[in-house]
Amino acid sequence: MQAILDEIVATIGASDDRGKVADYIPELATVDPNQFGIAIATVDGQMFCAGDAEQLFSIQSISKVFSLTVALGKLGDGVWQRVGREPSGDPFNSIVQLEHENGKPRNPFINAGAIAVADAILMGHQPKEALAEVLQFVRFIADDDSICFDDKVAKSELATGHRNAALAHFMAAYGRIKNPVDYVLGTYFHHCAIAMSCQQLARAGLFLAADGRDPLTGARVVLPNRARRINSLMMMCGHYDGSGEFAFRVGLPGKSGVGGGILAIVPGRASIAVWSPGLDTVGNSKLGTQALERLVQATGWSVFG
Amino acid sequence: MQAILDEIVATIGASDDRGKVADYIPELATVDPNQFGIAIATVDGQMFCAGDAEQLFSIQSISKVFSLTVALGKLGDGVWQRVGREPSGDPFNSIVQLEHENGKPRNPFINAGAIAVADAILMGHQPKEALAEVLQFVRFIADDDSICFDDKVAKSELATGHRNAALAHFMAAYGRIKNPVDYVLGTYFHHCAIAMSCQQLARAGLFLAADGRDPLTGARVVLPNRARRINSLMMMCGHYDGSGEFAFRVGLPGKSGVGGGILAIVPGRASIAVWSPGLDTVGNSKLGTQALERLVQATGWSVFG
Amino acid sequence: MQAILDEIVATIGASDDRGKVADYIPELATVDPNQFGIAIATVDGQMFCAGDAEQLFSIQSISKVFSLTVALGKLGDGVWQRVGREPSGDPFNSIVQLEHENGKPRNPFINAGAIAVADAILMGHQPKEALAEVLQFVRFIADDDSICFDDKVAKSELATGHRNAALAHFMAAYGRIKNPVDYVLGTYFHHCAIAMSCQQLARAGLFLAADGRDPLTGARVVLPNRARRINSLMMMCGHYDGSGEFAFRVGLPGKSGVGGGILAIVPGRASIAVWSPGLDTVGNSKLGTQALERLVQATGWSVFG
Amino acid sequence: MQAILDEIVATIGASDDRGKVADYIPELATVDPNQFGIAIATVDGQMFCAGDAEQLFSIQSISKVFSLTVALGKLGDGVWQRVGREPSGDPFNSIVQLEHENGKPRNPFINAGAIAVADAILMGHQPKEALAEVLQFVRFIADDDSICFDDKVAKSELATGHRNAALAHFMAAYGRIKNPVDYVLGTYFHHCAIAMSCQQLARAGLFLAADGRDPLTGARVVLPNRARRINSLMMMCGHYDGSGEFAFRVGLPGKSGVGGGILAIVPGRASIAVWSPGLDTVGNSKLGTQALERLVQATGWSVFG
Repeated sequence: MQAILDEIVATIGASDDRGKVADYIPELATVDPNQFGIAIATVDGQMFCAGDAEQLFSIQSISKVFSLTVALGKLGDGVWQRVGREPSGDPFNSIVQLEHENGKPRNPFINAGAIAVADAILMGHQPKEALAEVLQFVRFIADDDSICFDDKVAKSELATGHRNAALAHFMAAYGRIKNPVDYVLGTYFHHCAIAMSCQQLARAGLFLAADGRDPLTGARVVLPNRARRINSLMMMCGHYDGSGEFAFRVGLPGKSGVGGGILAIVPGRASIAVWSPGLDTVGNSKLGTQALERLVQATGWSVFG
Repeated sequence: MQAILDEIVATIGASDDRGKVADYIPELATVDPNQFGIAIATVDGQMFCAGDAEQLFSIQSISKVFSLTVALGKLGDGVWQRVGREPSGDPFNSIVQLEHENGKPRNPFINAGAIAVADAILMGHQPKEALAEVLQFVRFIADDDSICFDDKVAKSELATGHRNAALAHFMAAYGRIKNPVDYVLGTYFHHCAIAMSCQQLARAGLFLAADGRDPLTGARVVLPNRARRINSLMMMCGHYDGSGEFAFRVGLPGKSGVGGGILAIVPGRASIAVWSPGLDTVGNSKLGTQALERLVQATGWSVFG
Repeated sequence: MQAILDEIVATIGASDDRGKVADYIPELATVDPNQFGIAIATVDGQMFCAGDAEQLFSIQSISKVFSLTVALGKLGDGVWQRVGREPSGDPFNSIVQLEHENGKPRNPFINAGAIAVADAILMGHQPKEALAEVLQFVRFIADDDSICFDDKVAKSELATGHRNAALAHFMAAYGRIKNPVDYVLGTYFHHCAIAMSCQQLARAGLFLAADGRDPLTGARVVLPNRARRINSLMMMCGHYDGSGEFAFRVGLPGKSGVGGGILAIVPGRASIAVWSPGLDTVGNSKLGTQALERLVQATGWSVFG
Repeated sequence: MQAILDEIVATIGASDDRGKVADYIPELATVDPNQFGIAIATVDGQMFCAGDAEQLFSIQSISKVFSLTVALGKLGDGVWQRVGREPSGDPFNSIVQLEHENGKPRNPFINAGAIAVADAILMGHQPKEALAEVLQFVRFIADDDSICFDDKVAKSELATGHRNAALAHFMAAYGRIKNPVDYVLGTYFHHCAIAMSCQQLARAGLFLAADGRDPLTGARVVLPNRARRINSLMMMCGHYDGSGEFAFRVGLPGKSGVGGGILAIVPGRASIAVWSPGLDTVGNSKLGTQALERLVQATGWSVFG
């Protein structure tokens, strides 16, 4: 395994064609595109790392997996009154679908859906409390209390996030956002600004590879059925309108973020985190996807056979 | 396994709430909604059946999996010049997406995509020849030369299929259909009118569960990588705008048809066919989906853990 | 003429089927639906009134004609860099069109377009200054310094206007709003909250019937060509996705507001204001439209022959 | 008047920037783009011509005005069960709007709408009879029995008209086309292939400028109210998604065709036909529009003041 990762870092990690770093969030635009890290946490307790696997990066939309898990913990299936669970066929920030479906987002991983999930978590709380809850959950599943928000990134998003503000106000117009729009956006932008390393992120995803239980601590995080369902959502909707392509090439449930990270789950085996800041045209890490494709070829880990 | 199937037939198969038989194809509207069959073919050569598992039904869109496989055999990755591989987020017969994407269908399993695949298979042939090729392939993978088209169903579709004619002409207007529209529609409607039983269908899908090789005859049907990719397309796009729901509830690659059949693949283990004519609101077999959900709960066969 | 108006008030004004008062702006929802007023100002200086023609009402979107005129005075044809001049074919508050056209509103009379116009007027000013300018202009063309904003209505809109906030943020995301979104919305909501009577409104529109000159004071308001063009925009886009219906039935350039008012222009002859709070299904005054249809039948004032 | 036309031919008619001749209908693609003609028929019986005003050209979509008039004569307001009367905001051949509105075209002047009108005319007849009726009507209003179809153009369209075939099948799928699709398309393509000169066309439109009566023969063609309504539809929908622009610049009801012709009506005064084969980006005659703009400036004939 370590040899495979080393080979991936040496070849793909050194590619010239690295994609384009997200520039619509000013703080992210400054990240050095030449970084590349990968980490694999296995259900039997091993951790393999290569490249910049300990470097912190902004997990951005990968946090939507964690906020969804928190929301499911609080509201159970009530979450599905607020967001659907179908792929959207549209870019991550499309508002067209929202108008056609009366303000109900297609799934929890497009921006509108994650904003609706943030609203669900907030219910009856201040943004600080909701955020503390999400952060506490991430620290719990990563078994690492050093994980924090990157305030600079959160503020950078708040200042420029007109499109997300439009989505939130639009849902509010349909009565689908119950808390003040400012609170909801603050919560959303902050949980997207959690900073983690590949190593921490792979560790945090392990419960999804192990039927909902943390295989190292033995702690039950979610029931097996819920872990399966979260995995199915990652497969179907985890890469926006590139989800089909990711399933076709990689064949694992995964969730990408515009910070260049991807979390992928191998049910029963492992949790993988990869990071390379450059993005492809639909907003997913270009080298990260290639690395996962190579890894799956080498390991036979595709869920599709 | 047999006990599980018997229990499913006794409970779900006897449900009162059976959905609505498709009525837009006159010949299908006459099918008795009270039928229910299920069959499982395992990669180690066993076959389990229950209910009306030997009753022939119209496989309809399930045939798209087979026509895609034939087209991939002829054109290889050239198929992807003609159709995409992303979920569409739209109903099976939507034309909106086609206009937004200049006549290129999102994936090979929506109607427009399967029509484009039929055009690809036709290239340089008469419809009869193309259809013979598809039928021969289905007989080969099912190891059963008795499988035939149901001409009455094919003609019933031809007479009423204005929407599919619209899709075909629309793609032709973008230069994406190379053969006469009549030929293409004839080919498409006929391969949708293949009649099979659950038992035959489960047998036919076995190569997708066994890395592309027929585990009983040992014949190589497709390379392992292609089998995986077909499975990924079934997962992402196999149930139209109910694909997310099917992944969430069942967690297997599957393809439904408006005849009420579903083919589901358990990579490395088995191929499952279920049939109940009544459909849910998005056009997938209502009891068939429930049966697969129950089966996966009982067997733990979800690919998601 | 007076007899025609009296007859309209007695018949149409007394109709039982009055439509539905707008309820999404709380302050408007409290208006008595049984009111009905009509006023005609002719270019030769006569004024005919009937019904509640002196009752103040919220002119709402009718103000978009005046804010557009102010913006054209400041930016000239630069306004058309910011908004188009085609009918939208969509409801007044649709966001779909905005996404398809990269944040540029189709015309200045849908909400998004009027918000973009408000942004254009603001440029370099505080909302108070911009609003003073619009109000001063309305007082000037109405020759009446008593005209004011209704602050309660403006605040009522601000508190509930999530959809307009969504439109504004959405355009800001495309770089099409240059001022703070709060300023722009404040300006927009306030100019929509101008309160006028039919008599004042008919008087205010007179310059559009008289080649851009106030025929009573002799003051040049806009050049003849600009008056014609504003009239053309009212004809094409003045009633949202009911513009075709209004042209078909009434045949005059007109602009409606959800307060139940309509301003209609008879080029070369007269300016007409009608008010009845109940709206039809696309948001235009139900009895107001009927009254104009009757008036045009009686006078032969249609521009279409 | 003659001097104005001569000046227009000498300046605009000689422009280098002539737009692009329609190339999707092969027969039209061969037309010499350097031709330019204009003709004005006044209600008091004068005819002014300049340039290639006697040259025959394919009137294409201008024929939709005449087929609508025939359909209104046969079905009266029943026509509005089949097509709406709102501008579409979409290109002339869009299918998106049809799906959103269950197969009912927005107005009779987009292609789908004119196809629905052709279906309405056909009812109970062979295409030959329906076409004879339309041609007879055009000869009647033009007072000229020499007017004919250009069969080569009609066949050229039939062979390549996949998009219109898609629209027709799509409406048939919603039950909105009652006759065989082939019949409907044949009727539609043929009436679009009527060949007329500017002089004939201006003469033919005269009844719309004269309250529905032919001012030269005294024959009543339609009632005054119907003439007004047809004019309103030409204003709102006569130039596809360039209708707003045409109203803004020209200010007359008008209908364009991809053959490069435009018919414009000055209610109470005149009927104008202009022809220049090169089209602008939305499919309307480039120099034809400029010529009308100049003419209206010179004559003050805008309906907007």
